This record gives sequence, C-alpha cells and structure tokens, in this order.
Amino acid sequence: MSADVVSDLDRFFNANSGRIRDELFQLLRIASVSTRPEHAPDVARAAEWLAGSLRTAGMSVEVHATAGHPIVLGEWRGAPAGAPTVLVYGHYDVQPAEPLGEWDSPPFEPSVRKGRVYARGATDDKGQLFIHVKAIEAWLRTRGALPVNVVFLVEGEEETGSEHLVPFLRQHVERLRCDAVVVSDSAMFAPGLPALLTSLRGMAYFRIAVAGPDTDLHSGSYGGAVVNPVTVLARILASLHDEDGRVAVAGFYDRCREWPAELRQQVAGLPFDEDAFRDEAAVPELGGEAGYSTLERLWMRPACDVHGIIGGYTGAGTKTVLPARASASLSCRLVADQDPAEIDRLFRAHVQRVAPPGVRVRLDLVHASPAWQARLEGPLLAAARRALAATFEREPVLVGEGASIPVIGDFDRIFGAPVLLLGFGLPGENAHGPNEWLDLGNFERGLRTVARLWAELVAGDFPLTGPRSP
Amino acid sequence: MSADVVSDLDRFFNANSGRIRDELFQLLRIASVSTRPEHAPDVARAAEWLAGSLRTAGMSVEVHATAGHPIVLGEWRGAPAGAPTVLVYGHYDVQPAEPLGEWDSPPFEPSVRKGRVYARGATDDKGQLFIHVKAIEAWLRTRGALPVNVVFLVEGEEETGSEHLVPFLRQHVERLRCDAVVVSDSAMFAPGLPALLTSLRGMAYFRIAVAGPDTDLHSGSYGGAVVNPVTVLARILASLHDEDGRVAVAGFYDRCREWPAELRQQVAGLPFDEDAFRDEAAVPELGGEAGYSTLERLWMRPACDVHGIIGGYTGAGTKTVLPARASASLSCRLVADQDPAEIDRLFRAHVQRVAPPGVRVRLDLVHASPAWQARLEGPLLAAARRALAATFEREPVLVGEGASIPVIGDFDRIFGAPVLLLGFGLPGENAHGPNEWLDLGNFERGLRTVARLWAELVAGDFPLTGPRSP
Repeated sequence: MSADVVSDLDRFFNANSGRIRDELFQLLRIASVSTRPEHAPDVARAAEWLAGSLRTAGMSVEVHATAGHPIVLGEWRGAPAGAPTVLVYGHYDVQPAEPLGEWDSPPFEPSVRKGRVYARGATDDKGQLFIHVKAIEAWLRTRGALPVNVVFLVEGEEETGSEHLVPFLRQHVERLRCDAVVVSDSAMFAPGLPALLTSLRGMAYFRIAVAGPDTDLHSGSYGGAVVNPVTVLARILASLHDEDGRVAVAGFYDRCREWPAELRQQVAGLPFDEDAFRDEAAVPELGGEAGYSTLERLWMRPACDVHGIIGGYTGAGTKTVLPARASASLSCRLVADQDPAEIDRLFRAHVQRVAPPGVRVRLDLVHASPAWQARLEGPLLAAARRALAATFEREPVLVGEGASIPVIGDFDRIFGAPVLLLGFGLPGENAHGPNEWLDLGNFERGLRTVARLWAELVAGDFPLTGPRSP
Repeated sequence: MSADVVSDLDRFFNANSGRIRDELFQLLRIASVSTRPEHAPDVARAAEWLAGSLRTAGMSVEVHATAGHPIVLGEWRGAPAGAPTVLVYGHYDVQPAEPLGEWDSPPFEPSVRKGRVYARGATDDKGQLFIHVKAIEAWLRTRGALPVNVVFLVEGEEETGSEHLVPFLRQHVERLRCDAVVVSDSAMFAPGLPALLTSLRGMAYFRIAVAGPDTDLHSGSYGGAVVNPVTVLARILASLHDEDGRVAVAGFYDRCREWPAELRQQVAGLPFDEDAFRDEAAVPELGGEAGYSTLERLWMRPACDVHGIIGGYTGAGTKTVLPARASASLSCRLVADQDPAEIDRLFRAHVQRVAPPGVRVRLDLVHASPAWQARLEGPLLAAARRALAATFEREPVLVGEGASIPVIGDFDRIFGAPVLLLGFGLPGENAHGPNEWLDLGNFERGLRTVARLWAELVAGDFPLTGPRSP
C-alpha cells in the first residue's frame, strides 16, 4: 500500500475526527431497540439516518422495507475490472437498555469518559459499523475511488434473530454476490492486541411456560395438594445441568466438534488474565463445565443460560399465593456442528420427560442459528493480518467468540464467500448490559485499519476464497 | 335459648337485612391492603369505619395506633355477674388484589352475582368479621343487653404477620383477659355443612436472593464460564422437594405431630369431593406428598410453596443476558409441633449446603408463626355445635385448615383461653386470589348463628375452658 494513500487517509481522519465523532453520537442517540414494538419508529429512523450517512460517503443507497425492520443496502461498484467485491455487513439495531437504573449516564445520550464513549450500541454494533461507513468516505473523498467494489448491507434485526435478512440475501443473491464478507461486530483480544475471529457460537433461544391453576390460589388452602408451577419450572431449569456444569439434556454434546489441536494450543498460549475476566464479570468465582479452561468454555463449548424468569407475586410486601403460572426464557449457545433443530428436539424430549403431571408445560423455540467456524487460511485472512499489524503495530491473534451473529454462517453458505470478522471492541464493554462503551482510540485505529484493508485486499493473492477449514 | 329471643333476633335481621348488606359493602369498598405502603391511608380508614360501626352497635370503642396499622378495640361489659367474657378477634386488612386483570368485577366495588358478593376481603375477613358486629347490634337493639361480656379485637396486620398484635395482647393482658376467644375467619366444609375448625397450619415465610455479577452480562460473552444466578435459584428451589413431593430439607418433618386416630378416621369419612376440589383449583391433576390423602396433605402435613420468582429480563421480546441476580419468596405451612425458628435454621443450613460457589445467596425469614391445634372437647365447642346445628339444621363436622391465622396460638398461650374457630366461608372462595366471594346465604345464617352462640354459651357448663387435648 503506497505511502501516499496512507498519508492521504490519515490526513482525512485527522482533519475530520471531531465531525466523525459527532456523527457517531447522532447515531447512538437513536434508541433503535429492535425487540420492542414501541421503538419501531426509532429503528426506522436509524435506518434512514444510516442511509443518509452512506449517501454522504459516496455510495448509492436503497432502504428496503421488510415485514420487520428495514434493510439498508449501499453500493459502490467503481473499482477497476477484476477487483474483488466485498460485502460489509453490520446492524443498526441495539439491545434493550433496561435496567435503566444501572446506567451511570443515559443509554441514548453518548457520554465520553476516560477515552471511552458510553451508550447503548457503542460497540454492538453502531460504533464498529460506523467505522466502515467512514473508511469508505475517506477513500472516496481523498482518492475518488476505492480499490475494491463495496456492497454495504445493514440490518435492523440482528438482536432479534435476523429473521428477514436471510430471505433478503436469497432474494438478491445475484446482486449481492461477493468475493468476501467483512464484519466488525466483535472484540480485540485485549487492549493493544488485535484479533481475528475464527468462530462464533450459534443459538437456540427458548421460552418455557408452566401453567397450573387458572388463577393464583391461596397457598394455605391449596399448598401441599396442588402442584406449584414455579417449583415445576425450577425443577425443569435445574434439570438442565448436572453437578459438573454440563448440560444434562441427553444427546446435547453428540455433535460438538473438537477444535484442531493447534488452535487449542494457540488459545492456551493467549495472554488471558483469568482474574481480570472474573473481576470484569464482577463475580466471586468463575464456573462452568468441568474439564475445560475458561476460554474453551466460552469459545469451544456450548452453554445453556436462563435469561429471565417470572412467576407469581413479585410486588412489594408478602403475598401467600400458589401461583397460576411461571415462565422463563433461556438459550443454548451452540458450537459447530450442533444443529439447532436437533437441539430443539432434544430439549423438547427432555422437558417432556421431567415435567410432572398436574401442570401444563410448553416449550417454544423462539429463534435459532447454527454456530460458525472460519476458514483458518487464505488471502482474506492474510490481508486482514497485514492491515491490523500495520495499524496496531502488533500481529493479530486468532480467537473464538462466545456470542452469536446469526447471519455469518448464512453468508458462507449462500455466497460461498469467506467471512472476515475484524473486531474493534474490547472485552468488558458490556455489549448487552448497562454502561455499554467503546474505546475511542480503537475507533480511530479501526478507521485506519479498515481503510487500509481495502488496499491490502488487492495486494494479495486471488481468489480471496481460500481452502475451507478444517 | 328462649323462643322469644330467637324470634326477636330473627325479626331484627329480617328487618335490617338490606341495611346490613349496604354497610358490609361500604367496608368492602375500602382497599385496606396492609402489605402495601401506598394503601396505608385506606387501612387507617377501614379501622375508623369499623370503630364507627362498633359504636353504632352499642360498644365502647378505642382505636389504638401501633407502629404499623391500628388495632380496634370494642368492649361491652354489661352481662350479669358471673357471665363469661368472650373475646372476638378478626382483621380488617386484606391481601393485595393483583393480578387485577383476572377479576370479573373491580376488587373494591362489591358485585352481587348468583347469591354471592364478589370483592377483595368478602370472605377474608371483612364479611365474616362483620357478622359479629351485627350479631352484637342485634342483641343490644332488641334486648338491650348481651348474655356475655364481649371484647372485640380487630387488627389490620393479619395478612402481613400480625407483628403488633401480640405485643398489644401482652401489654393489655389484664384488660383483655377472657374465658373464650371466638374467630370467624375460616370456611364451612361444604355448602350446607357447617364445620368447627380444630387446626391451623403455621408459617415460615422466606425471601431468597441470589446475586452473581454486578450487572446483567452478555450471555454470549460470559455464558458457560460465569455461574447463572437464575439457574442457581432454580437448583435451590428444586432441591426443596424430593421426587415424592416431600420437603427434602433435613429434619423438616422431625417434630410433625400425627393426628389422633379418631380425628384421622373422621376426616377420612368426610364427604370430600376430590374431583370438585381439583376442578375448583382448575388443575389437570392434584399432587403433593406421597402417602397422604388430599385433606391430610392440606390439614395434617406441612407444605412448602414458592409464591413468586423474578430474575433477569422479563420484558417483551428476547434479550440474551446472563442475569445479575434472581430472587424468590416462599413459605412453609407448618403443623404442630414444628418450630418456625428451627425451620429457619434447617432451611438456612440446607441452602448453605446446596448453594454453589460463584454467587452470593441470602435467605431471610420474613415472618413466622407456629401451627395451632384446638382442644377437641369442652363447653365452648359444645355451645358452638348447638348454635350451628340450630341454624344450619345439620350437625357440624370437625375439620382442619391449611391456612394460617398467626395469632390464634398466641390467644391460647397468653390467656389460657380456648379458641373457637367458627367459619362461614366456603371452599373455593378465592380468599387470596382474584374474584374472592362470600355466599350471602351463609352471611345471613352466620348472623343468626353468632347471635345464638352468645345465649348457648351461658346455657352450657362452666368454666368454658375444657381439658387441653390431645
């Protein structure tokens, strides 16, 4: 990559740093909570705002309505003949901000403290997505062109399972055809240590409801003779794990792929600070499946977590009812090659087996996506290595990720294109919790890394599709 | 009891039936929910209203402030020398009405349908308490005197554990000294079949809280390596029962008194319709401790029920958090001779044993009261039998009660006086649930039964204190 280009881009980012940050804050102010119907107008506003920003960057943009939230499609196809086409994917929707009382500053009013911007969506994914918007703007403003064709695909339903994205991909498969997919919705391994993501866990999200009496009963008049729905739900949830922290649903682990020995070895060698991770989680002690390290538990092994539970009287004071019903939401984080549909069947059979008579138990699969594993070699990964090493002055490490980005596996399956997960977040940024933040230094380095990546992509080997691994 | 008196009282009740019912409805309109601070003014209003009603009946009345809700004390001491003094106890506070959406008519606007009045407190205990107010009024208006001295003691904290009543009893032990205590806060066995209550279960009410991370975490980034507080709470609650529905806390049953064989036999002979009870509870099947009948499970055996549980994200849509905390409220319904303080110790030890590392678990005893068992013989029970048999034209049966009236045991202990539990409710009246009701026919028969009881008390043997049983 020529020194001219680098200094042009650098100059642009330096000169526009304040404006870029202001624009990011505008986006962060939009409460685009996709799971809440009352926020639908905010979600639509975020889509329109982003479309405007992509147009300003120099792309041609369409906002596609779906049965859910809109998909924003930006295109710039002016690269030299033979240049690859890169699809950049991101999402402009965010998780709910509740519990609001635990935020130190309002979730939709960005607040800068100690070099970080605090806001819902700062790291997941508005901040990281915006890096790509501005990297394109930098090329087009300074050089008038990009070295690659870019298709920008941004959805508003990532946090609710990307229901309408995959149909959209299939419907526009020719138009969206690409040589590589680039996504920034993940984290570096540690401050100063960039990472390339090689795996994402999948998900099977369930709701479970236990119904007993039609109405809450007096626990004195019925207690002891009527099965208590909360107790049944507790017994079902308790039955999902054994004493060793393993998921106790028969067949659950049957299809779990073990990682290549070299990758496990590399992971074991990472400068992982277990105490810091524990402190960051703010728990007295870590836990999990016996026989695996913390990073293996997070990246290589599946998990099953309850997200919420409610039943009976939960107001102030005391009330001696035998509750009519109780419900919970939970999900399994899946690894390759677990099949969400099979996990659904296994959980269904398990719940049926442990549910006692006297109540009605219902389990619903709300959304599901399989895990994803990257191809561990090829020119795409090589280009990303060079871009990161140049900007961060450190070789990136290969890492896994415990969270899910449902659509990543679909990109691979539909386009046959390798996916690059290039994260500028940091561990502990509270992506789904209160006080979500993004390091502004990494935001700046992210701008430069992505801008450089476009050039590195045409400096390396073709095609970008390397061998499928393992 | 002379026919003159009976016809005078009957005439009074017939002539005043509409007015008495109107007054009852006034009392039912006051939302005296003792457990909710925002209802404190309503609770105070109910106390004042009741004081006024007792004055109208002809008693001298004091409203005693406590650190909680007021105690209403009414007295009439004009009976002939040597006549016994009877203490009537009741409560003017009610359970919360939530969930409001499940009421067919507003909980604090009495609605008459099919001979029943629907309202929170209709049967527990405003309706039954008011029977006693009006029975006194009937005697004093028609005869100018009662055959016994009556002390009326009505509290506003029964639904929250009667915290200030027992100190009040001890403080005024000489003034309140009595030969018998009469309470109407229970049910007949079935329509047309009156009952005398021989036992009440006690209670140990707990709150349990499990705290994990400081804030909700992203379940993808932490799930599998951080202990989930909802799962821990579920495992603790699940551990409280074994597969046979027995409470699995070591030592829990050690002090349970078996009932006298003749009482068990009498209970086995009751015309109990198990299918009707199941339909009334509206559950597909009954459950409970193996080896006991439904009535034994409710009356003779202790039980442990969760009243409410909450943790994590319980809003609309989905949210993949690993919750920071979870909590539940639960209680044990105790039988003689279980000691609430010992049950607290046993539960504490149990929770400590089953709680895993990685979370902080806290168990708090919120309120507690021991169970009560009646003396099964003596002139008090005999007088009540005669009064009930005359009014209902059927011999009453001896029954137990699964619910708790914390102070009953204290009356026995403090005054050495036998307690008569004379209930005019019916099974299925939803005492603590939505659509609470009272049968207005039983309300009318209750007025006549209680008025008759005062005469029967001086027609039988003295002293009223029979032998202690068993």
